This record gives sequence, C-alpha cells and structure tokens, in this order.
Amino acid sequence: MIAVLKQGATAQQTAFLVDWLERMGLQVHAYPGNDATVLGLIGDVSRVDMALLQSMEIVASVQRLSEPFKQSGREFHPDDSIIAVGNTLVGGGHFAMIAGPCSVESEEQIIGVAKAVKAAGATILRGGAFKPRTSPYAFQGMGAEGLQLLRAARDATGLPICSELMNIHQAELFADVDLVQIGARNMQNFELLKEVGRLGKPVLLKRGLSSTLEELLMSAEYIMREGNENVILCERGIRTFETRTRNTLDLSAVPVLQELSHLPVIVDPSHATGSAKLVQPMALAAVAAGADGVMVEVHNDPARALCDGAQSLTPEQFAQLNGRVQTLREALNK
Amino acid sequence: MIAVLKQGATAQQTAFLVDWLERMGLQVHAYPGNDATVLGLIGDVSRVDMALLQSMEIVASVQRLSEPFKQSGREFHPDDSIIAVGNTLVGGGHFAMIAGPCSVESEEQIIGVAKAVKAAGATILRGGAFKPRTSPYAFQGMGAEGLQLLRAARDATGLPICSELMNIHQAELFADVDLVQIGARNMQNFELLKEVGRLGKPVLLKRGLSSTLEELLMSAEYIMREGNENVILCERGIRTFETRTRNTLDLSAVPVLQELSHLPVIVDPSHATGSAKLVQPMALAAVAAGADGVMVEVHNDPARALCDGAQSLTPEQFAQLNGRVQTLREALNK
Amino acid sequence: MIAVLKQGATAQQTAFLVDWLERMGLQVHAYPGNDATVLGLIGDVSRVDMALLQSMEIVASVQRLSEPFKQSGREFHPDDSIIAVGNTLVGGGHFAMIAGPCSVESEEQIIGVAKAVKAAGATILRGGAFKPRTSPYAFQGMGAEGLQLLRAARDATGLPICSELMNIHQAELFADVDLVQIGARNMQNFELLKEVGRLGKPVLLKRGLSSTLEELLMSAEYIMREGNENVILCERGIRTFETRTRNTLDLSAVPVLQELSHLPVIVDPSHATGSAKLVQPMALAAVAAGADGVMVEVHNDPARALCDGAQSLTPEQFAQLNGRVQTLREALNK
Amino acid sequence: MIAVLKQGATAQQTAFLVDWLERMGLQVHAYPGNDATVLGLIGDVSRVDMALLQSMEIVASVQRLSEPFKQSGREFHPDDSIIAVGNTLVGGGHFAMIAGPCSVESEEQIIGVAKAVKAAGATILRGGAFKPRTSPYAFQGMGAEGLQLLRAARDATGLPICSELMNIHQAELFADVDLVQIGARNMQNFELLKEVGRLGKPVLLKRGLSSTLEELLMSAEYIMREGNENVILCERGIRTFETRTRNTLDLSAVPVLQELSHLPVIVDPSHATGSAKLVQPMALAAVAAGADGVMVEVHNDPARALCDGAQSLTPEQFAQLNGRVQTLREALNK
Repeated sequence: MIAVLKQGATAQQTAFLVDWLERMGLQVHAYPGNDATVLGLIGDVSRVDMALLQSMEIVASVQRLSEPFKQSGREFHPDDSIIAVGNTLVGGGHFAMIAGPCSVESEEQIIGVAKAVKAAGATILRGGAFKPRTSPYAFQGMGAEGLQLLRAARDATGLPICSELMNIHQAELFADVDLVQIGARNMQNFELLKEVGRLGKPVLLKRGLSSTLEELLMSAEYIMREGNENVILCERGIRTFETRTRNTLDLSAVPVLQELSHLPVIVDPSHATGSAKLVQPMALAAVAAGADGVMVEVHNDPARALCDGAQSLTPEQFAQLNGRVQTLREALNK
Repeated sequence: MIAVLKQGATAQQTAFLVDWLERMGLQVHAYPGNDATVLGLIGDVSRVDMALLQSMEIVASVQRLSEPFKQSGREFHPDDSIIAVGNTLVGGGHFAMIAGPCSVESEEQIIGVAKAVKAAGATILRGGAFKPRTSPYAFQGMGAEGLQLLRAARDATGLPICSELMNIHQAELFADVDLVQIGARNMQNFELLKEVGRLGKPVLLKRGLSSTLEELLMSAEYIMREGNENVILCERGIRTFETRTRNTLDLSAVPVLQELSHLPVIVDPSHATGSAKLVQPMALAAVAAGADGVMVEVHNDPARALCDGAQSLTPEQFAQLNGRVQTLREALNK
Repeated sequence: MIAVLKQGATAQQTAFLVDWLERMGLQVHAYPGNDATVLGLIGDVSRVDMALLQSMEIVASVQRLSEPFKQSGREFHPDDSIIAVGNTLVGGGHFAMIAGPCSVESEEQIIGVAKAVKAAGATILRGGAFKPRTSPYAFQGMGAEGLQLLRAARDATGLPICSELMNIHQAELFADVDLVQIGARNMQNFELLKEVGRLGKPVLLKRGLSSTLEELLMSAEYIMREGNENVILCERGIRTFETRTRNTLDLSAVPVLQELSHLPVIVDPSHATGSAKLVQPMALAAVAAGADGVMVEVHNDPARALCDGAQSLTPEQFAQLNGRVQTLREALNK
Repeated sequence: MIAVLKQGATAQQTAFLVDWLERMGLQVHAYPGNDATVLGLIGDVSRVDMALLQSMEIVASVQRLSEPFKQSGREFHPDDSIIAVGNTLVGGGHFAMIAGPCSVESEEQIIGVAKAVKAAGATILRGGAFKPRTSPYAFQGMGAEGLQLLRAARDATGLPICSELMNIHQAELFADVDLVQIGARNMQNFELLKEVGRLGKPVLLKRGLSSTLEELLMSAEYIMREGNENVILCERGIRTFETRTRNTLDLSAVPVLQELSHLPVIVDPSHATGSAKLVQPMALAAVAAGADGVMVEVHNDPARALCDGAQSLTPEQFAQLNGRVQTLREALNK
C-alpha cells in the first residue's frame, strides 16, 4: 500500500502517522520527494482502514498495490473455478442455463415449467419459495411448501434446483437445495453470508442494486472465508436514472469480474430489464460478453400469456433463446 | 388504483384482465374513452403486484391513488410520532442530538466520549459494537463486550445508548439497548426487520445507499407491522457519481418523508460526507430542512486528532456544533 | 393524454383545470369515478407541459398515450432507416464498423491508421479534430488542419470520414465530412442540434452521460425537424457509481431504442469502458444485442503500444475484433 | 503529480514511460521501493492526460498533488470573490436573493412579478426568454421580445436582471443583461463557455445534471481563462434514482465548492425539487449550508395559483421565505 502525503505535512505529523502505522504491525518506508512524501506500507495491509487513512488531514491519497480479495481473486488461483451444482457444472467453459418461474405457485405449475425448460435445454431449475418483497403486505412466497414442490420438480426432471435463502433460521430447509441464492438486497447482509459459507452448498451471489464489483467480490470473500469456495457471481442490473428499463444491466461486469476473479459469472436479464422482449437480446449479449451462464424467468400459464408482456418468457420463447445461445457459443468458440 | 389500457387493447384482452383482477377480490370499473380505456380498481389493492400489472402488454400505466405505507403514513396518523428513547424524546418538536464514536474501542474511550458529549449537549450516545464491514478481514467490532462498555457509559452519564444490530442471534444482547440501529446495508434485510419489530425496542432505520424514500417507508412498515411503532428514520447519503464526498446527502428526504410519514426523521452527516469539515454545515442544513435530529461521530483521542481530518469531530467541535444547532433552532421557531 | 385527478379535487378546481386545458386547444373528456376523476385529453398534446400539469395540486398523475417522438419514432415510420454515409450504408441490416484514433495527430498517423483499419475491415474512419476537453488547459485538437488530414486519409483509402462538430461557427469546415458527430456533452445543446439539422449531413448523435433514452430521441427530433432525417444514435456509457470502468455501457439501450425508433443504433465500447481489454467483449455483446454498428478507437503508435493499456486497440487487435464480429453476425443471422 | 507503477513493471517499460513524460517537458523523479516504483512528476502537469497515463498497463495509479483549477481555485486567490451584478453584490458575505418566473410571458406578468419580488426582498430578477426544452415541439420562450420585457421590468423596479443564454448568435442580445445564465445542459458546451467568457458580463454557471464538482470548476475555468472572472456557481440538483423529487439537491456541493474555490455558490431549490412545498425547507437548508444566495421561481398568476402546486412560489410565499432566510442568516452570523 502506498500513501502520498500532502505538501504541507510537517515532520511531526509525518512521524506521528508513521508511528500509528507501525503500531499496526506494518513496516513503513518513506520516500521524501521534492513535492511530496510517499510512504510505502508493507505487511498485512488488510487491517488498515483505507477510508480512515485517506481522510487524514495530511494524506493526499492512498493506493492499494494488490487487490483486497484473497480467495476470490485470480492472484493465488489463476485458473477458472468450476462449480458442481447437482449433476451439472458451471464455469471454466461449462455454461449454466438456469430457468424457471419467479415464484413456485403450485405442483402443477412448477413441474410443468420444469419439464418444459428441461426439454428446451435448461441445466438448472430456479423457483422462489421465500420472496423478498418491498412491501410486507405483498405475497411472501409459499415458503417450506414451495421448497418441497421444487424438490418434486427435481425428482420429475433430474434438474438441480436453485432457490433464495433470506433467513439464517431457514438454513436447514435448504440442506437439500443444490444452489442457494443470496439476493441482491442481502448482498451485504454479512451475517447471512457467513452462515451460508458454513452451510457448504454452492451459492449464487447476486450483485446489490448499487454495489460496486469490488464490494461483490468482498461479499464472496465472506462466504469463502468460512470454507465454502463454491460461489457463482450474478450480475442482475444496477439502479440508474433510466426509466425505460427496470434497472440497467451492467454487462461490462462480466469481463471485469472474470479478470479479477476465478469465480463463474452469470447474468440475469429478466430482473435487470423487467421486460420479456429484452430478455433475448440481453441474454445473447451476456453470452457474447463471455458470461458463464444466464438465468431467465419462464412461466407456463397459457391464460396469463394472453395479456402478460411481463418479464417471464413462455417455454417456446425460452427454447428459441436457448437455441440461439448455443449457436452463438459455437460461433464464439470457433 | 387506476390502470390505463393501451389503445390497441382488444375486448377479449380487456375482459381477461378484468376477470383476473376480480378474482383477486377487487371491484373493477371501466371507463371506456375515445383514446383509451381506464380501469378503476377498488378494494385491497395492496395485494396487486403493480410491477406485474404495469408490465402487461395491454397496460399503458398503473397509478396508485393512495400511498402504500399504512402504518408509517400520515393518512391514518396525521400527528407527528414522538418516540421515547430511554429518558429522552424524539420527534414532534423534540430534537435528538446523537453523538459518539464510530466504534467502541475501550472503557476509557467510550466513557470519556460519553462524558464529553453529554457535557456538550448530546441527548443520546452512539457507539458501534458490531460493525458491518465490506471486508471480512477488517476489524468487526468488540461485539458483546462493546455493548457492555456502552452500558457502563450510560451508567456514568445517564445518556440513552444506540448501537447497530446486524444479526437475529444477537437480539437478546440488545434487550438493554435504548435505540437499536438497523444499518443502511440491512435496510431491506426483511427477516431482520421482522425480528426487530418483535424486539419491541425503538429502532433507528437507516436508508439504504440506493434505496428510494418509498422503499425506506416500506421497510418501516415491516417493523411496525410486528407491533413496534417506535421507528426513527435516518437519511445518511446515497450513492452517486460524485467523488468529492463519500456519498451524497439527500436533504430533500427530510421534508419529503415528513410529509408522507408521521415518523421522526434524523440525518447523519458524518457517514454521508465522510469528512469532519463538512459535518457542521450539513448538520445545520439538516436542521434548517426540518430534521428531528442529527447523528454525528465524535472521538476524543487527542493523539489521533493531530493528523486526523476524518469524519469524526472532537468534543470541542461537537460542542460548537451543538451551540450553533440550538441557535438555529431558536431562530427557526420564532 | 390521460390526467388522473386526486380524490380531494373540488368541482371548482376541476372546472378551472378543464378550462385551462381547453384554452390550449384540447378537447377534454372527464370520466368521474368513485375514487377519482380521469381526464382524457385529445388534440395536440405536445404543447402541454407535462411537468407543469403533473405538479398541479389536484393532479395525481399524467400519462401520455403515445410517444413524444414523431419523426424518430416507429409509429409513422415502421421500417428501419438506412443511412448513406459516403459510400457505405448504416442500418436495416447494414453494419457500420467505425474505427480510428481518438485525435488526429499527424498525416503519417492518420493515413497509417486509415490504411490499417481499412485493411482490417472498417467501413468508416473516425478521428477527432476539435476535442471537447474538460480542462481548457488540455490539448484541444488540431482543428481545421486535423480535418484536412482526415480528408487526405479518405483520399488515400476511400473510407468515409467521421469527426466531431462542437461549434456552430465550424459548420462550413464540416461541409465535406461524411458523418458529423455530436458528442455526449452537446446532446442537449439544442442550438447546435438545430444547426446540424440544417447542415444536411448525416449525424452521429451520442447519448449524454446522464441522459435518458427518451431524451436522446427528443434530441434526434431537434435535428430531424430541420429536415435532416439522417441520424444515427450512439450509446457510449452512462455515469454510475461503479469505478472499475470509466462509465457503464447500457446495452439494453440497443433493443429499447430499436423498438421505439427506426434510426440505426451503434455502440462505442472504447469510451464507455476506457479500457482496451474490455473493448472486444463489449463490442461483441453490442453485436449480440442487435447493434447496427460499433465505433472503436484504434491507434498505430508502435512505441506507445509498449506500455499503453489504454482504451485504443492496435490495428492487429482491431483486425481480430472485426473477424469475430463478422463471425458473430453470421451466426446470429442463421 | 505522482504515478505509482505496478509491481510487474519492467525496467524497459519504466524507462519508456519516463522518456515519454520527459518529452512532454516534465522532470521525473523515480523512487524505487520494495513493492512498487513511484514517479514524481514536476513541471506543467496540466498538459498530461491523466486518463491516458492512468490507463497504461504498468501504471497502478496517478495522483495529482495540486488541484487542476487555476483561476477558480483558492490556492492563488484565497479571499472570497465578490461579484457585482448591476447594483448588487454577490459573495463574500453578500447574499443574492434571485427570484422571478420560469418564463417571461407578458409585460403585465413580468412587471407584476418584478414589483412583487422587489417588495418582498429580492435582489435580482430572473426570467427565461430563450428556454432549453427537451422537446422541439414545446414552447421555446419569447426570445428577444422576452429580453425586452425583462429590461422593462428592470426599469420599473431597479432590479438587475438574469436570463439564460443558449446560443452564441444571441450574444449581443444579452449585452444589456446583468447576469448571463449558462444552463445545466450547456455546462460542458465549451464553445459557449469561451464565448461567454469573452462577453465580459457576470455569468451564472449551473452544474450539469450528472457533472462532478470538479467538472463544474473546470467549466468555470473556460470562462475565466477568457478574462472574465465574474462567475457565480449554482447547484441545481443532480440525477439519481429517487423519484419523489425531480432531481436530488446536493447541498454538500456548497461547502465543498467554497473550500475549493473563491467563487460565490448559490442554490436553486425550485428546479432541483420540482415542488413548491419543498422550496422553503431546501432554501433554508442551503442558507444553513453557507450558500451565497438562492434562486427561486415566483409567479403571480392568481388563477393558476388555484390549482397549481408546481414549483413556483406565489409572491406571498416568497415574502415569507425571504423573511425566514434573513432570520436564519442573522442567527448564523451571531
């Protein structure tokens, strides 16, 4: 870590700062220059509060020389991680096609969708049992019964299942879920991250609505530090001022994360755009940007389809999307 | 609730939608016009998924006619709420001056700060025992021992104490904390909100870094719906592209929230700006905007003060701030 | 246009509002309901100030029933526009591969890059002569001489040329430029838009850093209204809180704009990401999202290439990119 | 300026970079350390393209040691600038109370408002003659006639007048306007900034909707560099995701700008919030934050007032606001 001091820093202030840093166990090398003093800090700099250091009166700037992510970073783990989710693999060239309804609603619904997406090429079935809802008055999901139905859909199709965990108390209900999702709103629920790290199941970690990519990786660190290295990162849109889409899908997140980290990166165009019409172009764009998978909402309600232009695809639309995704992947791998 | 249908909506599509809405228990009144059909929906519209309705192919727009916040809203509770926090009151003309260090570090530190801020006019003592940190490798707070020291500081000064709760398992440790803080990162940790609602202690609910004011109030609903009406809202800055301040303090949040809600609204200029120099002007601005209180970081480390230009005020700076705040409040109440 | 009045609107207030609207030449149909009155407005609603109407005390919401873009919108022009730029076409299946240096620096440089990108598949040569710079102390471009060199490069290669116009007084210098660029910072310089509309040359209109897609189309309207229908839209990244990329490329802009408008939409991944490493994945993603072209920075300074990891590609990298873009386009068109 | 090189930088790469910098006329001092090499750059660093340097493969970070604003910065001009606008002063303790209608609509209107705001304590009259409108189909203002009426209002009241200039061709029409406004959308219309710098009239420069404070000051540099030092900065809200206010008023801009610059800083709460109800609390907050003035919209249309809850105040509301502002200023100056 490098700290550049301001020109006006006095010898006394500098000495004080050096002493404070040394008491944290760091070695400090000072490079006095004509126009500024530069301090090189050596040792376990992860213990230094960069924001505090940065905000000190005599400090012009602070710069890490290495990335703060130890377990998710490429530095000590240059090869792509390949995560086993039930009977399928994600990452390192293995593409995840995750599909299913927003919420599990009934046995008929979830088994119907599961069969349809399996036939159309999905590799993992998703379905919400516990739903994070902005309003406490809105439907909060079927809960434990929804997970039960999801397992029945797995039995009927062989597809591994993915569902969102919101509460530490629910952990044992998820012991048999193949991929445990941590939603965007809980990306910095650090206590839940620790618990899910101890759960030992593969985790799908969604980026928070206004989280930076560095923060996403630091949240992965919370999970991995508990001994769980099976983390899949998911870009699902960030909040901006644009109103024609629900959120703004940040596809540069894919190559940026892949350069920084060995973990697989998937993209959820359904939640990001909030519009079925945009799912296919943005899923294809995600593939072209190098994503290790996509996650799309699919429902099979023929009645709702009549007037529903919402974010869910029909099974037919999903089958078409999957075909185009495969064509694109082949072209890119040539 | 009003739904405006698109011009191209067919009679069959319209009938299907009306049927779908009626099956949710709503009465639907259609007003066919020359250029569009308008549907008026009467009944418990909180059960309608506005986003789903909005996204339907034939729907041009959806508009609530009443606000979605029932318990935090002014409609059925026009008078300001006044919340008792230990021996002090917040809201309805009672101003909260919350001060203390970012983290509890030692008995000497917290009792020293507590005495200093009490003498300078603070009404509540703050201090972090469990710290939400972006990095798992950073100091996570003193934990239970920190809470113990905070209680000692209360015994020494009589000031009610405020500290952040991050984990449901910690709930009983907070049984004796006067004001339980829910941090910005947990504003939409709905499970924690429900638990803290059941805890029965006054809650300080901080706005998430990219949360809307409506979402903040919906999170207050989660707490209040469990029977806990003692919620204080806190604006602490939102994320923008500006880099000269840590976050952007959104002071219009104060009058907007006060118009929508009867709950007290306080402002945290220390975290929002990340700079001690900006704390006083922004605290005064918060008072002028009508805030029911401010929350500022104060430390008493004379050594650190030598080169620390960070976000914490010294006790002397806090005393000066408090004097100016009181002068301003008197002038505004004339 | 539909205006929904609040429940408390009195008959007198409603009558006043109706009268005000009728005096603007609109027909007003009122649909009084149990819980709200809805006003349907018929006529030339483009003259109504929606923001003013929306802000009136008795108005709950205002909703347009048609899009405000008349000439750029699909409603009266359902087919894709195909724009002739010199000897090449853009839109309606014709893909633009625009390449060249950020700034024209010398004859050797621009002719060298022009030949290299021509050989590698570029269809249009870009090069800045007048540079919009945040600082007045920074290099502002070669000016008229730069345009002269750009013309020489056209003569040497046959590639049509594209350069940015910043000033109405420069208009005649651009009479011989094939594609006139309006930069992001001037997207709402309405006077310049009008002038460039009168110039009669094809225009490349870049989205502002915090402009909505609707505003981008309204700026296209300014140009088209002067009789110039040859407008190409360009997404080049928006400002967010993320710091690992210079801006955030909003690729959903491509399908959203293409649904709303018949104008071609191209993408500039170089400026959006600020990083050469991200140009290829994001250019491919743009193609997969359906873009009508991409615009990339290419330089040919072998010395600079040694340590330059900046946003410009080398000619070799550009040739590789172009090959992959063509492969991808063929795969998508199958 | 300091450039920190990455650990992997080779001697050859470093030598190349040093050579490149020296050819720009800089002296380069290298401080090789254990973990990184730091380059100190001395000389006219304003010519260095920081973004280019930053993006080089071997460069970890670049840090300016001095601010880039030369004429607007405090470094060589520590005292507050006091700007004469007609017969009134702004800055250095002189408070500007700028009021008037959004648009000049008629002689009766503007003279009526001018008299009312004069009586209520305004020091400058504002009124739009040329209006920047998102849509080309919307009313674009009365133009030259509007300026004529504004001058008549000045004759009738003695108030200096302020109006927005959008077009270089209009410059001579503004020769007799006391304060020339550059609107948010033109903040980076660098050609217009240069022209207005040459016009020699005091300039009110509004912050762009997504501009940083540093960019605002760099735009002031464009004006000042032409010899016009009479620039007043104006915060008017930035774009965020929040929808309950039109924009988000960034009041920390006031103390941040005042620390960096000697120029006066005023605040426009009318455009920022878009709501008359929020004008008073936010104007008071601006005063408490230390603003050198506020700019508020006032209309005097008794009919419109009946149902108009929009952003304009009535003269009575403005008189009340002005009274409270003065009370507040006295309290703060005690």
